[in-house]
Amino acid sequence: MRLTADNINPNVRRAEYAVRGELAVKSEDYRARLSKGDASLPFEQVISANIGNPQQLDQKPITFFRQVTSLLENPELLKNEDVLINGLGYKTDVIERAKWLLKQVGSVGAYSASTGVTAIKESIAKFLERRDGFPADPAHIYLSAGASSGVNTLLNVMCVDKSTGILIPIPQYPLYTATLALLNATCVPYNLDESKAWGTDLDTIKKSYEKATAEGIDVRCIVIINPGNPTGASLSEDDVRAVIDFANQKNLVIMADEVYQTNVFVGKFHSVKGVLRQMQKENPGKYDSMELASLHSISKGMVGECGHRGGYFELVGFDPEVEANVYKYVSIMLCAPVISQCLVELMVNPPKQGEPSYELYNKEYTGIHEGLRERATALHKAFCQMEGVECAEPQGAMYLFPTIRLPKKAVDAAAAEGRQPDELYAHQLLDATGICVIPGSGFGQADGTLHFRTTFLAPGTEWVGSIVKFHQEFMDKYR
Amino acid sequence: MRLTADNINPNVRRAEYAVRGELAVKSEDYRARLSKGDASLPFEQVISANIGNPQQLDQKPITFFRQVTSLLENPELLKNEDVLINGLGYKTDVIERAKWLLKQVGSVGAYSASTGVTAIKESIAKFLERRDGFPADPAHIYLSAGASSGVNTLLNVMCVDKSTGILIPIPQYPLYTATLALLNATCVPYNLDESKAWGTDLDTIKKSYEKATAEGIDVRCIVIINPGNPTGASLSEDDVRAVIDFANQKNLVIMADEVYQTNVFVGKFHSVKGVLRQMQKENPGKYDSMELASLHSISKGMVGECGHRGGYFELVGFDPEVEANVYKYVSIMLCAPVISQCLVELMVNPPKQGEPSYELYNKEYTGIHEGLRERATALHKAFCQMEGVECAEPQGAMYLFPTIRLPKKAVDAAAAEGRQPDELYAHQLLDATGICVIPGSGFGQADGTLHFRTTFLAPGTEWVGSIVKFHQEFMDKYR
Repeated sequence: MRLTADNINPNVRRAEYAVRGELAVKSEDYRARLSKGDASLPFEQVISANIGNPQQLDQKPITFFRQVTSLLENPELLKNEDVLINGLGYKTDVIERAKWLLKQVGSVGAYSASTGVTAIKESIAKFLERRDGFPADPAHIYLSAGASSGVNTLLNVMCVDKSTGILIPIPQYPLYTATLALLNATCVPYNLDESKAWGTDLDTIKKSYEKATAEGIDVRCIVIINPGNPTGASLSEDDVRAVIDFANQKNLVIMADEVYQTNVFVGKFHSVKGVLRQMQKENPGKYDSMELASLHSISKGMVGECGHRGGYFELVGFDPEVEANVYKYVSIMLCAPVISQCLVELMVNPPKQGEPSYELYNKEYTGIHEGLRERATALHKAFCQMEGVECAEPQGAMYLFPTIRLPKKAVDAAAAEGRQPDELYAHQLLDATGICVIPGSGFGQADGTLHFRTTFLAPGTEWVGSIVKFHQEFMDKYR
Repeated sequence: MRLTADNINPNVRRAEYAVRGELAVKSEDYRARLSKGDASLPFEQVISANIGNPQQLDQKPITFFRQVTSLLENPELLKNEDVLINGLGYKTDVIERAKWLLKQVGSVGAYSASTGVTAIKESIAKFLERRDGFPADPAHIYLSAGASSGVNTLLNVMCVDKSTGILIPIPQYPLYTATLALLNATCVPYNLDESKAWGTDLDTIKKSYEKATAEGIDVRCIVIINPGNPTGASLSEDDVRAVIDFANQKNLVIMADEVYQTNVFVGKFHSVKGVLRQMQKENPGKYDSMELASLHSISKGMVGECGHRGGYFELVGFDPEVEANVYKYVSIMLCAPVISQCLVELMVNPPKQGEPSYELYNKEYTGIHEGLRERATALHKAFCQMEGVECAEPQGAMYLFPTIRLPKKAVDAAAAEGRQPDELYAHQLLDATGICVIPGSGFGQADGTLHFRTTFLAPGTEWVGSIVKFHQEFMDKYR
């Protein structure tokens, strides 16, 4: 029997991943048409605001990182240090770091140990210790091909079947629901509180947990995404504490997706690990059985090296036999890309003040951070002026997730096309302006609400103006 | 309830992956002890013959590839072409290729389209056309993070549950059984014919297929690994034709794992795609409904860039809706590492005769190929002299897979330890010599036979002598 959509794995068929779905495919078609000189489209460029892909838009890679990786790729260059320094402007710390990393990995073309290069795990542990003020153990750190791969590993180990429930924030990054669909496990949604800038609301979480438990679901884990994707929220320490306390009461694993930890504009980032260690210190014994998996990535932040597919996760409090199964699972795919492991090392251990590359590094890092803040603010300002649109102040991550209130006629027109209203909106926005955003329905949203997610990575203000203009025309059309 | 080995995903618990299992972990411990100056071990170095990891041992990366990737990592270097050429010896074709690839990918730090960079897929299609003499369509080529990731994708799409059967050669690369265990699908084993240098035997395949079908299994696919892992066999055109014809009769997808296609020492490599197209030409209409997935990788061959995690697969004859699900599945993990996609491009489109980098490229490529052949021959010669050992002549891949006949006392000693006899042998070999091989039981083997798999990547002949000496002592000990 030939394979057909009807007889393949129904879990794959059911999985949905809007970030790379129909809209993204259509936007790539438009891009291809434009590059072939097609002048029939009403725009001159496609702006991929559907995905946090900093270097596709304007973000330049950090010079120190790329100088080091160029030497890792071609260690023969290290035979000409004079040329590197005097001819190409490489600083001595670039050369030293490359030599040190090469000593650790051998060749970036060789497999590393399954969980990653030992010395890189040690660097990560030192970073976590500096960040949180509490020690970290390299033995419980796992390098991964981006945070997505880490999430995949952890959900594969945790989920048995439909009876396993995982608490997922709504709206969520659709990797979570897609992976749960692939595993045929149950998504237990809990709504974030839009009225409190998309913070967590413990009552809502409790209700979701209790409803699922009453239905016989074995709820095992709560996912938090902080700073939030798609919401852009940055959780307060109180919110983090409340989630930890609840997870501890119910014996839930916490999966902390913290890939946007440096993309914070308001307040500061509170890592679950740091807050947990603090709570353990304050309440001896009380939180000792907590299980926590925290994920980080080179894809986001000021690093923005998502094309390299690098990241890591740290496990805290896991049973050693469970960790042995995590090890086995990651070993089947052999190891994370070694050059991406090196980029993780560079991210967690960047040039320090006084070192030759520090000044430029700091200038680039700060420049990217400020640029993102400015773009977020400009976009937010535009949204606030749009009819029927409300948008929380930008706090973190790379996204804004405005509420849009659409006229009834637009809702009806969407229904006639078999689409959600925000899907119709996003399609028309793309068709009219070349700007690709993802409708809120791709992430999940409270019943009766409509949103879209846009990154604020694209440079310039012209595209912001295009959204404003489109929005007005859309509203007028369906009024 | 806390996670324990008893309540996690039983599919993960059940999966086995010997290549990175207990022996590999122990060998890494030995390596760490040696590097800390531990002098209590009876050897001075660990030789990881358990895994095809060329650059961990002696294989140098191809200069052209790494010069290009160094420029991809740091495009700023292209502002100093003079220094690159006159100071560092980069040839003009290195610079041109880097510029062309950068034009295609933007930045290697940016996500590409989910299935890979279009221009790279076009390069692969041209390579396939040159290799097979028949056209290939870039729209059906998918870049992946090594062939392992491609196998994972394809099995995830094909397998529904225990009722889905996949024909797997025995012995096999344990990625296949591990992935089937994760999917809770059924491995339908078919033994390769050791008496015919590990070729395929159609009667054996038929019997396995019929037995599984009689048990109600929906057999959907036959995997062939050519050249063979762990066997080192290189299939004849007749064997490939017979498998295609059988798959066509039974409507089986063929999954052709061809990652060792350039590691061939005897005869020539026959791609399933090329043979299928030839058969389709010879028999118009007869093979038109065949579904084929062929996989290739940058990890093996003379490229040996496994640490970069790159590869691709090509689909032939798949239903468009099934391909849409393949697309969706790969999009959830976003894209293969972009620098590894560029290495795929370099592999399939290396310098041509007359181009500035050709001479060195050709010298390096030929040198690696000849070196592997010499090492394989030396190791084979040693095995032929060992008591109770038989080994097929090296034909391809990076492995020898000798039969070992062990004394009854050794079999009893293994049973007393709860191990397979070849496992006992491999542990004692590692403990005595620092050489890590994988027992045949980690790959599957015909009942009553024992083997081990070793790579022939390690340089020198000393380690070969250590195996010979250990073997004699082991035989004497248990005689």
